Amino acid sequence: MTTTPDTWSLVETAFDVRNNRHYESLLAIGSGPLQQRAALEEGLRDDPQDVDYLRVIGDITADESPRFKSRVGTYLPGVSGPHPTCRDQMINLPAIHGLIIFAAGERLDLEHGRISNYIRRLDLRTGRLTRSFVWQTQAGAAVRVCFERFISAQRRHVMALRCSVEHVDGPPAELRFIGALDAEVRTNGFDHFTSIDITGEHEPITLAVRTNSGIDVAAAALVTCDRSVLWNVDLEARWVGLSGTCILDPGQTVRVSKFAAMTSSHHVAGSPLDAARNLAWEAATTGFDRLAAESDAVWRERWDKTDVVIEGDPAGQLALRVSLYHMLRAVVEDDPRCAIDAEAAAGEAYCGRYFWDTEIFMLPLFLYTRPEVGLTLARFRVATLDGARRNAERSGYPGARYAWESSPSGDENCPNRHCADHEVHVTADVAYGLWHAHLANPDDLRFLQDVTEVLIETARYWCRRVSYTSTRDQYELLMVMGPDEYTPFSRNNAYTNRLVAFALSLASFAWQKLERLDADAVAVASGLRAGRCAELGDKLQLADGELARFADVAGKLRLPYDESRRLVLQSDDFFDQEPLDFERCWPDRARRLEACVAQERLYRSRVLKQADVVQLMALFPHEFDAEQMRVAYETYEPLTSHDSSLSRPMHAVVAARIGKHDEALRLWRQSVGLDLAVASGPRSGRSDVADGIHAACAGANWQAAILGFAGLRTRMQSEILHLDPHLPASWTALRFPLVWDGQPLFISIEGSRVTIEHRGRKPLDAHICGQRCTLKPSQSCSVRPPCRPKL
Amino acid sequence: MTTTPDTWSLVETAFDVRNNRHYESLLAIGSGPLQQRAALEEGLRDDPQDVDYLRVIGDITADESPRFKSRVGTYLPGVSGPHPTCRDQMINLPAIHGLIIFAAGERLDLEHGRISNYIRRLDLRTGRLTRSFVWQTQAGAAVRVCFERFISAQRRHVMALRCSVEHVDGPPAELRFIGALDAEVRTNGFDHFTSIDITGEHEPITLAVRTNSGIDVAAAALVTCDRSVLWNVDLEARWVGLSGTCILDPGQTVRVSKFAAMTSSHHVAGSPLDAARNLAWEAATTGFDRLAAESDAVWRERWDKTDVVIEGDPAGQLALRVSLYHMLRAVVEDDPRCAIDAEAAAGEAYCGRYFWDTEIFMLPLFLYTRPEVGLTLARFRVATLDGARRNAERSGYPGARYAWESSPSGDENCPNRHCADHEVHVTADVAYGLWHAHLANPDDLRFLQDVTEVLIETARYWCRRVSYTSTRDQYELLMVMGPDEYTPFSRNNAYTNRLVAFALSLASFAWQKLERLDADAVAVASGLRAGRCAELGDKLQLADGELARFADVAGKLRLPYDESRRLVLQSDDFFDQEPLDFERCWPDRARRLEACVAQERLYRSRVLKQADVVQLMALFPHEFDAEQMRVAYETYEPLTSHDSSLSRPMHAVVAARIGKHDEALRLWRQSVGLDLAVASGPRSGRSDVADGIHAACAGANWQAAILGFAGLRTRMQSEILHLDPHLPASWTALRFPLVWDGQPLFISIEGSRVTIEHRGRKPLDAHICGQRCTLKPSQSCSVRPPCRPKL
Repeated sequence: MTTTPDTWSLVETAFDVRNNRHYESLLAIGSGPLQQRAALEEGLRDDPQDVDYLRVIGDITADESPRFKSRVGTYLPGVSGPHPTCRDQMINLPAIHGLIIFAAGERLDLEHGRISNYIRRLDLRTGRLTRSFVWQTQAGAAVRVCFERFISAQRRHVMALRCSVEHVDGPPAELRFIGALDAEVRTNGFDHFTSIDITGEHEPITLAVRTNSGIDVAAAALVTCDRSVLWNVDLEARWVGLSGTCILDPGQTVRVSKFAAMTSSHHVAGSPLDAARNLAWEAATTGFDRLAAESDAVWRERWDKTDVVIEGDPAGQLALRVSLYHMLRAVVEDDPRCAIDAEAAAGEAYCGRYFWDTEIFMLPLFLYTRPEVGLTLARFRVATLDGARRNAERSGYPGARYAWESSPSGDENCPNRHCADHEVHVTADVAYGLWHAHLANPDDLRFLQDVTEVLIETARYWCRRVSYTSTRDQYELLMVMGPDEYTPFSRNNAYTNRLVAFALSLASFAWQKLERLDADAVAVASGLRAGRCAELGDKLQLADGELARFADVAGKLRLPYDESRRLVLQSDDFFDQEPLDFERCWPDRARRLEACVAQERLYRSRVLKQADVVQLMALFPHEFDAEQMRVAYETYEPLTSHDSSLSRPMHAVVAARIGKHDEALRLWRQSVGLDLAVASGPRSGRSDVADGIHAACAGANWQAAILGFAGLRTRMQSEILHLDPHLPASWTALRFPLVWDGQPLFISIEGSRVTIEHRGRKPLDAHICGQRCTLKPSQSCSVRPPCRPKL
Repeated sequence: MTTTPDTWSLVETAFDVRNNRHYESLLAIGSGPLQQRAALEEGLRDDPQDVDYLRVIGDITADESPRFKSRVGTYLPGVSGPHPTCRDQMINLPAIHGLIIFAAGERLDLEHGRISNYIRRLDLRTGRLTRSFVWQTQAGAAVRVCFERFISAQRRHVMALRCSVEHVDGPPAELRFIGALDAEVRTNGFDHFTSIDITGEHEPITLAVRTNSGIDVAAAALVTCDRSVLWNVDLEARWVGLSGTCILDPGQTVRVSKFAAMTSSHHVAGSPLDAARNLAWEAATTGFDRLAAESDAVWRERWDKTDVVIEGDPAGQLALRVSLYHMLRAVVEDDPRCAIDAEAAAGEAYCGRYFWDTEIFMLPLFLYTRPEVGLTLARFRVATLDGARRNAERSGYPGARYAWESSPSGDENCPNRHCADHEVHVTADVAYGLWHAHLANPDDLRFLQDVTEVLIETARYWCRRVSYTSTRDQYELLMVMGPDEYTPFSRNNAYTNRLVAFALSLASFAWQKLERLDADAVAVASGLRAGRCAELGDKLQLADGELARFADVAGKLRLPYDESRRLVLQSDDFFDQEPLDFERCWPDRARRLEACVAQERLYRSRVLKQADVVQLMALFPHEFDAEQMRVAYETYEPLTSHDSSLSRPMHAVVAARIGKHDEALRLWRQSVGLDLAVASGPRSGRSDVADGIHAACAGANWQAAILGFAGLRTRMQSEILHLDPHLPASWTALRFPLVWDGQPLFISIEGSRVTIEHRGRKPLDAHICGQRCTLKPSQSCSVRPPCRPKL
C-alpha cells in the first residue's frame, strides 16, 4: 500500500493472505448497532469459519487457537453471551455479506486464483468499501470484478452490496453468483447459537438464531441482478443462499446487488425476523445508489462536526482520519446499553468488553464534538450501576465497583485476576468520565442525579477499600495495579490515589450541587423535582456523616511524592524494584518489551508499560507546575516501554504541553500509525490489528492533537475555553470544530494565529494563547500569541 | 459411618448419593501404576460420565462444571495428555470395574432402589473393598448383594472383582449381569481419546484407546460365574460388555467374578493389548482367592515397614492409617517417570500434577521406611530436568526451574500465573528433597552425580533470579510467593530465601563431594568413574568461578529478621499489610477463610494461609533456638487460617517440639481428620475430598507423628539418629519401624521409655531423650528421659 495525497482513503494495493485479517479490522465498516469486519464477499476457499477452539485470554494457556486466514465477523454491539472459558463475550453473528462467485465451476479465490490489478479502498468520508481486480479464470475468460459495500448510516441495520463483473478478455464466461446468509461461524472458537431457523421459500431469504443468552437475532437478504436471472434457493442446516447463473459475453457487464439486514430482540420490540425482512425489502426497493446517497449524507454531517484538518502532514492527516472514522463508526449514538469496546467491534480480541478506555480515552472526542452522543456513551455506566453493585458485593464490598472488563450487564468478566481484582482505578475513571459528561451537558439534571447516585455508591466502595495508617493519619491503597500493568501490586499508585481522592470529593460536591438545585425554581422547572436529594438519600439509605467521611478520606488519601526531587512517585515502592537494562534486554524495539522479557521479571523491574504519572498529569495539568511535569516526564519516559497503545498519545499530550514539541510529534506519529503498520510496509511486530482496532488509542489520538498540539484544556481542567497551541513545525495549519459549553465553534490555528469562529448563540469567555477574550456569536476572533521563551 | 474399635477399616454404613463422590476418593484402591476411584460397580442409573464440560482451575471462570453424583475414575499415573484449558493433565481412562445387575429388567441402583442393610468397608491392611446390602427388587424378590474388589499389589495392572447374590426372600429372581469395559468417560469434561478399538469375539473382551498424547492404552476383561451361564457380547462404539442371565431360586447364591487388566505403551514395550489380554487371562486362571492372597502378602510387607501404632487413640490410629494407606497405594515404587500427584491419583482436582508436595511432605515417609522407594520417587526430578530447563528458558533464565505444577514431562502446567511465575520456592524444595534422598541412599553414587547436575542447573537459575542491592551488599528475592499463597508478591520471603541459600550452598558442596569421590578408589569401584566431575563440568560448560558465585549469593541472600523481637519475618513487607479482624470477617471457622474474604483482600491483609516461618523451622529446627521458635509460632499462628491442608501438620511438628503438646495434638487430629470429615458426621465445609485425597497432608501426618511427637530429627537435621519424644498425654504408646542410615530399626515409645530394636547389621550412634548411646545390631536399647522443665 502506498500513501496517496488522498487523505480520505485507506487503500490496499495488493492482496496478501498473510495481511488479510489485519485489513479485515482496519477496513471494518458499520454504523453503531451493526458492525462488520471487512471480510471478502466471496470468502476464501479453504478457510472454514466454524472451527471450535478455545482461548483463555491473558492466561498461560493463551491463544493456542488455529491460525485463520480470515475472521468473518458480524456484530450487534450489546448482543453477548457466555463462552465456556472467556465468560460473557460479544457474539459473532451470522454473516450477511457473502457473495460467492464461480466461473465455469471455478470458485473465485484471491489466494489461489490468478488475480491482477487489485485495489481495495475504504472511503473514510462515507464508510464505503470498494474493491476491484481482474480475474483470469481457468476457463480462459478474464473478467474485471468490482465490489462495493457499506452499512447504511441512515438505516443502521442495513447492509448494501453491489458486484459488477465486466468481461475483458477471452471466451464468454459462465458465471454463478450465490448470495448467502451463513451461521457457520464461531466466536473465539465457540458456537453461541442454541437454535437456527432458516427460510428460503419467499424472498427475502432469512436466517434467525437464538443465542445462548436468549437473544433472538434475525437476518434477511435479497439478491437482484440487472439482467434476468433465475434465483434458486439452497438450504443447509446453518446456511441459506440464493444462487443464479448467467453467461457473460465479451464486453458485457453484469451487476448483482445484495441487500441484507440484521436486527435482534435486543433492538426491536416486535419480531426481529419481521423487522429484518422489512428492512431488507425496503432497502432493495430503495436501490443501491439512493441508499448510498442517504448514508453519505449522514456521514457528511458526522464529519462536519468531527473532522480535524492537518495541513502540511498528509500522512498524519490520513492516519488521524482513520482513528476518527473508527470512532464515528463504532459509537452507538442513541443506545446507552453499550459503550465502545476495546476493539471497536472490529474483532474478537478482548471479547467485546468495555474498559476504562471509554471514559478516559474515547469520551472526550464526543463530548467536544457531539456532546449529546458523549452523554449517551457515558450513560452506559449509569445503565450498569447494578452490575457494579454486584461486583462490589461479590468481593465483599458495599457500594459499587465497576468491572475492569465489563460485559453489557456491567458484570466483571476479566479472566485475569491480576487485573480484575487489583486494577481498581477503573471505578474512579468512571466517576471522572461521568462528571466530564455532566460538565459538557450541564442542563441534563436527570443525568446529574444519576451521576450523583454512582458517585455515592462508588465512594462507599472506596471507603472500604482504603487502609488507614494511624501513624501518619493517612489513608492508603494497598495491592493496587495502576494503568501501568507492569507494576501489578503497588502501594499507593499515584494515578489511582489521585483519581480516587477526586472521585470521593466529587461525591460530596455533586450532592451539594443537587441540594442547591433542589431549592432552585429554574431547576425544578427543568424537570428536576425538588426533594430529589431526599429521595436519593432514602433510596441509598445515606447515613449521617457518610458525605463527611467521603471528604475526609479524599483529603487524607496519600499521594506519593518526593519533595526533594519534586517528583510525583509512580507508587511508594516503584523505586525499590530492580533496574532493567533496556539496551541489553530489549535490543529490537520493533517488538514489544513484553515479548522480550518475561512478565514475571517485568513485575519486579523498574519499568513501565505506560507512565501513570504522565497520564495523571494529562488529566490534571492544572495541579502540577511546569517543573513537576518536566521532572516526571524525564524520569518516567525513559523507563517506559509504551507496550500499551494507550501510552504514546497521552505522553504526546504532556510532551506538547511542556514544550517537547519534536518528541510530542514523534510519539503522535507512532501512535496514529500503530494500526496502520500493516498498511505502511513491512509487518511490524508491534502492531496487532488482526483481531480489532485499538479503540482507546483512536480516541486518544484526537486528544493528542487537540489537547496536546492545539493546547485545549478540557472542562475538567478549565471553566472557560482555554487554548494554548504548540503546533509541530511541519504543520502549517490545524482546523477543527469544537463544542464548548454547548456552543459550536470552529477553530483554525495557522502558524502563530488562532482564529475562532463562533457558530453558536451565547457569548463565551476564553483564554487564548495566554490572552483573555470574549467570543461573540456569529463572529470570528483571531489571536496571535505573545513571544514566549522556549522551555 | 461410625468409628469402630477396628482401626484397620474405613466403613460406610449407609449410602447417601450426596456423599458418593467423597467416598469414591476416600475409598480409592490401587497399587502404583493402576489406580481406581471407588466408583460403584453397578453405577448410578442417571449419572452419565461422558458429559463434555470445561474447567479452568484457579481462575475466575473456575468450575462451572455440572454437578455429578459420581466421578468414575481409572488412572495410570504418568499417562497424561493436553486438555483445551487445563493444559496437560492425567487422563481418566476407560472404566474396567463395571458390573451392572438387573433383576427382572430392573437395574440395580442404590439411589432409587429399595436398599437396606448397607455396609461398605475398605480394609486398609489389604486394600480390599467390600460392600454388601439387601435389595428388595420390584419383582418381589429380596437378594443380598456383596461386592469384593481389589487391585493386585502383586500383579499391579490387574483388578479382580467378585459379586455374590444370595436370595433371601420372595419369588425366584431373574438376574442379568453385565461386565463391561467403558470408554464413555471424560477428564475434566474433555474426551482425550482419538481412537477406540473394541473386540468382543473371543474372551477376554478388550478395549484399546489412543490418547491425544499418542499413548496406547489397552484394557481386557473376563467374566466368570460359579454356575453355567451363556455370556453374550454387547458391542457399542465406546463400550463392550459381557452379559449373562440366570434364575436364582430361594436360598441360592450365585457368584460372578470379573478379572480385568489395563496397561499402556507407557508401561510395556510390546503390544499393550496383548499384555492386557494375557494379564486378564492369567488372573482369571489364578482365581479370585489366590489373587487376593498374593496381593495381601505384598500389602503385609508394606505395612510391616510402614505402620505406626498409636495406643490410646483409636480414632487417631485409624485416621493415620488412612493417610498411610493412600501413600502406600499411590506411590509407584519402581517408576521414576511419575511422582505422587496432589490428589494421590484419586481424582481429577489439580489435573494429576506434581507439586512441592512430593519433596517436602511425602518423601520423608518413604526415605525413613523404604529408602529405595523414596529414591525412586525423588528420581522423578532427575528424570524431568529437561522439562525444568525448558521452564527456565521460556521465562528467559539460564539453568533449570522446576514447575509449580509439573506434568510428567516436567513442564510447567499451572494455569494460574500468580503461582506459576512467582511461587518459585519449588525449585529450592526440589534441591532439598534430592539431597534428602541422597543422604538416605548415600551409596548410590550415580544418583549423587545426577543430583549435582540438578543443583548446578537450578543454582544457575537462582543466580539470575536474585537482585543485588549494593547499599547493603545483599542479594534479595523480589516478587515472590512463598508457600503462603495469601502473601503473593512479597519481598524476601523468609522460607524461600533460606531454602534458596541452602540450595545454592548445596550446589558447591555436592560438587566438592563428587570431586572427593572422583579421587576415591572405593567410589570408583562402586561404579562412579573417576573424572565424572570433569565430565559433568564439560556437559554443563561449568565456567570458572560459577561455584564460587553460588556460594557468594548463598552467603549474601537476605534472611528477613527482626533482631529486637527475635522474630524471623514472613517477608520484609508482611507487617506493612492491613490487619484483618478474624472475629468479624471469619465468624464460621468451619468454612475456609478464603470462602469468607475475597482473595484480593487476603492479598493485602496481614493474614496467612499457612505460616511460612513455621514451615521453615520444621525443616531447619537446628538453626533456630527455642525462643525464636516460640516467638515465631506465637506471632504467626494467630494470623494463620490453615486454609491449606499442608499447614496444620507442620504446625503440629513445631508445636510438639516447642512443648505446646495440647496444641500439637489438636492440630494433628484436625489434620488426620481432614479427608475423613465426610465419614465423621455432618459434611464439613472445609473438607473437599470429592475430587481426590490431600496427598501432601497424608504424608505430613506421618511427619507430625514421627518428627513431632516422636521427636525424630531427619538426616537433613542431624547426622546421627536423634529422638526426643513428646507424646500426647492420651497416647499410651507409639511404635513404628524406621530405617536410619540403611539400618532397619523398630521404635517403641511407651510413657517415658524409648525402646529401640536394632534389626540391621551396623552399629549406630544415637541421641535419645538427650542421651548419647550406641545401638547395636540385633539388640534392643531402652532409654528413659531425664526430668525436664516444662517450656
